[in-house]
Amino acid sequence: MASGSNWEKVAASKRAALADSIPHEYRVPKQQLPPDSQLDVASWPKTSGWFSSEELEITDSTASQILGKIASQTWSSEKVTRAFCKRAAAAQQLTNCLSDTFFEEAIASAKALDEHLSRTGQVQGPLHGLPISLKDNFNIKGKDSTVGFTSLVDVPAEHNATLVDILETLGAVRYCKTNVPTAMMIAESVNNVFGRTVNPLNRKITSGGSSGGESALIAFGGSPLGIGTDIGGSLRIPAACTGIFTIRPSFGRFTTQRCRSGLAGQEAVASVNGPMAKTLEDIAMYSRIMVDAQAWLLDPKVLPIPWRQVEVKKKLKIAVLWNDGICLPTPPVTRALRETKDKLQQAGHELVDWDPKLHPKALELLSRMFVADGGKSVEALLAPTGEPYRPEMDMYKEAKELGTHDMWKLQLERTELQRQYLEHWMSYDNLDAILAPTTPYASVAHGDFTYVGYTGVYNVVDYSATSFPSGVFVDKAKDTAVVDVKAQSEYCKATRDSYNAELLHGLPVSLQLVAQRLQEEKVLAMTKAVLQAIKST
Amino acid sequence: MASGSNWEKVAASKRAALADSIPHEYRVPKQQLPPDSQLDVASWPKTSGWFSSEELEITDSTASQILGKIASQTWSSEKVTRAFCKRAAAAQQLTNCLSDTFFEEAIASAKALDEHLSRTGQVQGPLHGLPISLKDNFNIKGKDSTVGFTSLVDVPAEHNATLVDILETLGAVRYCKTNVPTAMMIAESVNNVFGRTVNPLNRKITSGGSSGGESALIAFGGSPLGIGTDIGGSLRIPAACTGIFTIRPSFGRFTTQRCRSGLAGQEAVASVNGPMAKTLEDIAMYSRIMVDAQAWLLDPKVLPIPWRQVEVKKKLKIAVLWNDGICLPTPPVTRALRETKDKLQQAGHELVDWDPKLHPKALELLSRMFVADGGKSVEALLAPTGEPYRPEMDMYKEAKELGTHDMWKLQLERTELQRQYLEHWMSYDNLDAILAPTTPYASVAHGDFTYVGYTGVYNVVDYSATSFPSGVFVDKAKDTAVVDVKAQSEYCKATRDSYNAELLHGLPVSLQLVAQRLQEEKVLAMTKAVLQAIKST
Repeated sequence: MASGSNWEKVAASKRAALADSIPHEYRVPKQQLPPDSQLDVASWPKTSGWFSSEELEITDSTASQILGKIASQTWSSEKVTRAFCKRAAAAQQLTNCLSDTFFEEAIASAKALDEHLSRTGQVQGPLHGLPISLKDNFNIKGKDSTVGFTSLVDVPAEHNATLVDILETLGAVRYCKTNVPTAMMIAESVNNVFGRTVNPLNRKITSGGSSGGESALIAFGGSPLGIGTDIGGSLRIPAACTGIFTIRPSFGRFTTQRCRSGLAGQEAVASVNGPMAKTLEDIAMYSRIMVDAQAWLLDPKVLPIPWRQVEVKKKLKIAVLWNDGICLPTPPVTRALRETKDKLQQAGHELVDWDPKLHPKALELLSRMFVADGGKSVEALLAPTGEPYRPEMDMYKEAKELGTHDMWKLQLERTELQRQYLEHWMSYDNLDAILAPTTPYASVAHGDFTYVGYTGVYNVVDYSATSFPSGVFVDKAKDTAVVDVKAQSEYCKATRDSYNAELLHGLPVSLQLVAQRLQEEKVLAMTKAVLQAIKST
Repeated sequence: MASGSNWEKVAASKRAALADSIPHEYRVPKQQLPPDSQLDVASWPKTSGWFSSEELEITDSTASQILGKIASQTWSSEKVTRAFCKRAAAAQQLTNCLSDTFFEEAIASAKALDEHLSRTGQVQGPLHGLPISLKDNFNIKGKDSTVGFTSLVDVPAEHNATLVDILETLGAVRYCKTNVPTAMMIAESVNNVFGRTVNPLNRKITSGGSSGGESALIAFGGSPLGIGTDIGGSLRIPAACTGIFTIRPSFGRFTTQRCRSGLAGQEAVASVNGPMAKTLEDIAMYSRIMVDAQAWLLDPKVLPIPWRQVEVKKKLKIAVLWNDGICLPTPPVTRALRETKDKLQQAGHELVDWDPKLHPKALELLSRMFVADGGKSVEALLAPTGEPYRPEMDMYKEAKELGTHDMWKLQLERTELQRQYLEHWMSYDNLDAILAPTTPYASVAHGDFTYVGYTGVYNVVDYSATSFPSGVFVDKAKDTAVVDVKAQSEYCKATRDSYNAELLHGLPVSLQLVAQRLQEEKVLAMTKAVLQAIKST
């Protein structure tokens, strides 16, 4: 434990160790690195000449495609793993998205899997040979999970997270961990250990948080599938900022056991984890495989609900959340909602408007739950090395601890809000889903991400929700700034004032599709229907 | 609200109102009342001559039988309801088991149901016409739920508990509420409003708590089916003390929404509710019907897990919990375990011993969670009327409040204990169930119930568990006091010292059958197998 050490020295040393962990053959020669002025580096793997065509073919494939090619012995897991290690190494050098690499171990695991397949003719499990990246907080025995605190540098985990064990049993290959914000409680991925992760689509822009190391890595092509977590939007926000897919499951579908938390023991709003990938198909595949793994035999908090076949109605009833009454979405997000709504109607679905009357209360509760310990959990992790609060963490610095009696009252308020939200949903006869912004932004310049209400409300009620690219991209000609609308709140004003169509031009715009609690199968199937409607019109 | 009033006056007035609520025709004539010296009053309905033979036939029937006779129009719901109102009124006069009666409303509901059936030829729902008694904390609009506090007298509920609404939809008839201990946090049913409920099998003995009004009422024949709650044993303890059946489900199977709690907002250990009845068949029937009612459409905390068909293995593997290392069971309970084990082996099941190494930690956590608010919830309900703490509530009086940061740490400890308990269970290859004492006692004289560890451990891990009469009865010849065993704890010493074979002679001894979390269907089916083994040998 780095107790007593100077936090800046600890951080510098950890960053140096991370850089050193990348094998020489995976370090991009200086002359091939894009200049700092090149903002879009997502295209760099193709244009740089640093990757072979086979490496590009492998790393541009989907997880499902890769699994097929490995199972048929077209590609070895070793070859696939080496290709992703190389591309992940480049991602790190261009976007600062990793917190750890263990490429040699990964290649050794891949070789063993190849040997098993070759010898037995059978895959070890449904994820045989697939490299999967993990957010920093997934404990791996012997490795750090700093979640951005210098005090947690050189504090190796004593056991694997249960999910890590299960992924290994299923045949997945782990090869790197990805960067997060301090305590995983900021919507951008920045901390005092590893610094800031940037968006490969535009390095002046955030890749979101807290699973923003994952989103940057995946958007860059450095991972076919990654696992992030979400307590207020931490899967959906980074997925949206980079135009990839995710599902925030309800608590109890995927195991969260033995992971590092920024607010350990906090249960009033549950942290969950889920997959992030470039296709909906991969998200759905992972979800099914993970539920089929019956994690309830290992983790008592996992619900013994098997993967369910769902039949999605031809005509869905979807309510659109245009504006939550606190923070107006920026112009490209509103346009994405409008265009998606039109396409859904053209495809025969029924669209209505969602009344967000309960959202302000939900978000007030969320903020109070996060800081109910008076920020003591965060303080306890900053103090040992004298690490300062990041400016984004002011609410933890200023928080006042609740006694347990007041905490119980807060939980009662949250329970009543959950009841009201369900009652409100049921008042829309046969409503299937809510179509909502994932965030008010396409993305933002570093430091400008202030509002997480569009995702956070669904953490409070624990609903299942996907984030998906809408097919709309920011267009500076269409999405000019709105100046004549009165701001609804300080969040709304900040969002309006920071909007910069010029900077964001060309970025993808994502939306959320929200189903009720524990309807993971249904929300995935409905998202597929939404994508079909988007493509077919 | 009775704020500012003198608690003794409030209590006296409430008791008088309860007595007055019983119609004159249901008041037992003084000369027909058994003398105070008559301890067993369970036999009184048959011997007193106060009931007609049809009233006895109806009230001695099971819930399943009654539903069949009403559906076939052999009995009207009105006739059935009147019979149970009368017997419940007698139960109140002999055991002090009720907290409210609303017989006229019940008879009106029954008449309306009869009219519906007669007119349409259809039952309103699967519980059509069945009187169901409710523990005091189930809110009914316009009626008190005092949970034993004088400050809550004349504070009528503003809405129904969701379960009350569902029962009405299913066709059940509500007719009375049953007594509880203060805050429902004592293992005997005694409070400063209504006083003490006694056991109809022996009035010197407790009917248990906190659902001890229910257990006394059902054991007396005053209800075919009642609903109690359980946060540390409050369903299983009173069921065991009176020799009836219950199931403590895992949280999320039955709705608990909008009920009164003694520790409102406390979530670290979940309170659940479940049925109590004289047969396992009735418990299973209710459980299936309640899950089929899809309460998840009304209560967001209910899990959308439909009722599952389970196939129980011919040869079950059952671990016996002989002694939890804290409090040795009294002789009749140990004999019940031994005889049941022998019968199960004779029936071909595999019996092993359960290692209770995790039980002391589980119980320490349970105690800490109950008083984490420093007893403020209880204090806030005592203060308005100056009501004193009952002596059983000392732990709440003396408790020190935790800050939320320490509460989070406590929750982490509980999570780790839950993980370890599951890991320990899985270390017994293919274990199906644990056979355990429900309590260390058959029952006890009033005031002697000190140890709830055998039930409480399964609240901490949230496992599904039944309590069932083992077929063994206390026999003062066989179950002589054990004097040569060293007490394991203060609890153990108190339990040993208070054991009185003479007093308990003839009382039924119950046991628990415990399955994993959310295995309600399985634990019910396994209990059936256990009963078959008991009967067939």
